[in-house]
Amino acid sequence: MEKTKVAIVGMGTVGTGVAKILLDHGDRTALHAGRVLWLEKVVVSNLAKNRDCDLPAGVLTDKLEDVTSNPDIDVVAQLIGGIEPARTIMKTLLESGKDVVTANKALLAEHGPELFDLARKLGRSIAFEASVAGGVPIITGIGQCLTANQVVSLGGILNGTSNFIVSEMEGKDAAYNDAVKSAQELGYAEADPTMDVDGTDAVQKLSILAHLAFAARVSWKDIPKVGIDCLKKEDIAYARELGYRVKLLAIAKLAEPENLQSGLDLHVSPTLVRQGTPLAEVRGANNAISVVGDAVGRVFFHGLGAGQMPTASAVVADLIDTAVGRTQLTFKTLQLWSDREARVELRDPTLTPSRYYLRLLVQDHPGVLAEITGILGKHNISIASVIQHEPEGENVPLVIMTHEASEGSADAATKEIDALDWTKTETVRMRVLERRETARA
Amino acid sequence: MEKTKVAIVGMGTVGTGVAKILLDHGDRTALHAGRVLWLEKVVVSNLAKNRDCDLPAGVLTDKLEDVTSNPDIDVVAQLIGGIEPARTIMKTLLESGKDVVTANKALLAEHGPELFDLARKLGRSIAFEASVAGGVPIITGIGQCLTANQVVSLGGILNGTSNFIVSEMEGKDAAYNDAVKSAQELGYAEADPTMDVDGTDAVQKLSILAHLAFAARVSWKDIPKVGIDCLKKEDIAYARELGYRVKLLAIAKLAEPENLQSGLDLHVSPTLVRQGTPLAEVRGANNAISVVGDAVGRVFFHGLGAGQMPTASAVVADLIDTAVGRTQLTFKTLQLWSDREARVELRDPTLTPSRYYLRLLVQDHPGVLAEITGILGKHNISIASVIQHEPEGENVPLVIMTHEASEGSADAATKEIDALDWTKTETVRMRVLERRETARA
Repeated sequence: MEKTKVAIVGMGTVGTGVAKILLDHGDRTALHAGRVLWLEKVVVSNLAKNRDCDLPAGVLTDKLEDVTSNPDIDVVAQLIGGIEPARTIMKTLLESGKDVVTANKALLAEHGPELFDLARKLGRSIAFEASVAGGVPIITGIGQCLTANQVVSLGGILNGTSNFIVSEMEGKDAAYNDAVKSAQELGYAEADPTMDVDGTDAVQKLSILAHLAFAARVSWKDIPKVGIDCLKKEDIAYARELGYRVKLLAIAKLAEPENLQSGLDLHVSPTLVRQGTPLAEVRGANNAISVVGDAVGRVFFHGLGAGQMPTASAVVADLIDTAVGRTQLTFKTLQLWSDREARVELRDPTLTPSRYYLRLLVQDHPGVLAEITGILGKHNISIASVIQHEPEGENVPLVIMTHEASEGSADAATKEIDALDWTKTETVRMRVLERRETARA
Repeated sequence: MEKTKVAIVGMGTVGTGVAKILLDHGDRTALHAGRVLWLEKVVVSNLAKNRDCDLPAGVLTDKLEDVTSNPDIDVVAQLIGGIEPARTIMKTLLESGKDVVTANKALLAEHGPELFDLARKLGRSIAFEASVAGGVPIITGIGQCLTANQVVSLGGILNGTSNFIVSEMEGKDAAYNDAVKSAQELGYAEADPTMDVDGTDAVQKLSILAHLAFAARVSWKDIPKVGIDCLKKEDIAYARELGYRVKLLAIAKLAEPENLQSGLDLHVSPTLVRQGTPLAEVRGANNAISVVGDAVGRVFFHGLGAGQMPTASAVVADLIDTAVGRTQLTFKTLQLWSDREARVELRDPTLTPSRYYLRLLVQDHPGVLAEITGILGKHNISIASVIQHEPEGENVPLVIMTHEASEGSADAATKEIDALDWTKTETVRMRVLERRETARA
């Protein structure tokens, strides 16, 4: 049987998982690739470190050159996180004639155009299934399986850490800080969880999906984001009372379904999702993505978005695809960071329509509700429902669910409300996913 | 831009959808294929029939030879249902050098080995994403995206018609016959719905998935099946009372997760699925499949399993894959009906373990319950819960939920119970999906 020689750069959690599958299940990969995937080299920065994987003699090295100067190695899994040295290594690998597989979404979101242009120029390919939603095959789903469709919208839960934290807050009535601590203890959150909880990770993944599905040329930094880091227990409780769960959703949606010229709405934010619908019922560290295509309707993907073996599953599938030659064929026609013109522009984010959840704490005083609803009305925001609970001391918590309004109007109205003398704390504002968008397909 | 000339054989619902996408969205397919997909010929049996699609002059023909004798046509979507003439046409197309795309699961389930052998011998390919679960990309999901895994189990809702009928019975408290009538009126069921409601359609699809995921060499006729055609309103009501929904599930599962030698359990049957879990919440004509891989864990796919445009979406994706060359690469390594030995055997179905729902109607008489539970105990079936409602005249309805038992024991015990003088009607027996299997991944 023919061999494809493979290397791994970076032996962290995911790299170790990939090595395990290649070494322990060589028969399996050979069966699916029609050729042996032979692990020739593993490049690490520290040879002395203990590793949870027995590598055959001669495989481990601390010299990237052992890979780049070896013409027998065809495919390299580049599994170092962050921007540098990952970016330089990736370029060096491409320049030395390797096809590359990566799980590094931060690198792709930041330097995708440079890396994809370089790969195209050199006739090489980059595979990146593992960069979004771990083991859930959303890149192949959109990039290959739904190509008969114009994607109309896509969205879902792309950050498992945030989803775990919010699930803990909801299921165990935990405060944000305690839920973060549980996530850290269970290995779902880093010591510094900032990139996960402030929405950065989700927005980087969303930018990759938006490039792939809409050929948008948007930088992740231009996508509006709100994280879960200021989420309060009481908002989760009010949401539940109203029949919703709070989820950190990443959404990309054409302003008008049939019209690429209408522009693309993109954002990441904590969002109320109706209980019992598929996205609402995604728990723990899972990811889920719903894609609506103009032919297929809604397709929903759900599974583990992170972790050693789920991510390794995606990396090894990419290694097999590349060894077989499928990746190279797909890479040529992908709309991702291509030199083609953008097919859709990011629409002014203040125009994005949504229903809103607003929570205010106001002084218990006649005329307050009239004044607040007056401000909403002035901004063309109509009210769907109001909950006013018993006063807390002198103040009354007020929860307002609005009908659809633009982000700009909601923002202006909220600012005006917050400037009132009666208003005691800054208004909490969250989007509410439309019922028709949460429908069981 | 280069052209790949394409033909369609059969202009029913799906064929018309495929023609619409090719004709109306040529820019889209060209973008994703890197070449124009040019609809050269459409073969129909009756030229005079009115069609919901304007074909360019010269495209429509009633002669298959216009396709087989045209060496410029590379790929053909063979969209005729049933066995003959579909089988003969498929062979003729392969023999004339065409790569074939099909949605015909009955043909593949019945004659897959013959057709796949022929294609392999001739160096041609068969793509069949649309044959299972319509627009949901489960064939690519298993055949390409999860190849780093040994699939441990897969299962779900593969027949949208049955799911629609059961959803109607549950949601609207409709009797079986009325639900079938609604399904027919809405176009979800054929005038003769037998193949859908007796489990044949689901078992054919399951056999394709079992070949693909486990390299099983099982005939669909050997897979035990029970349909929804004898489902009673009262069982749906009792299931709801117990916290379950009834779903027609198709299941393939290794007897021991890590052990191909342990054999494969396969069956299609109405099954109680715990409310709130993803499979339970699949409504209407949707399909859903949950796949558990040893690396990736549980991945869940959900979407429209039938209908013109969802199915056309899958067919056109296959046409693009074939035009690009991916299908040919995949086809070579697919484990489906290959000449390789079976990697797993179908296990004796009487050994399949399951929890069971049993509903009996017994004479209201002292000692009856003791006698029944005695019979269950004798067959090593332990009881998880019992509901005994008020007597209906002289008889008492009795619902027993068991712990896990083998199908053989359950069958023997049921027969013994039905032979008792106290037993008034044949015992209704349904499987219950284990809680751990229904877990939100």
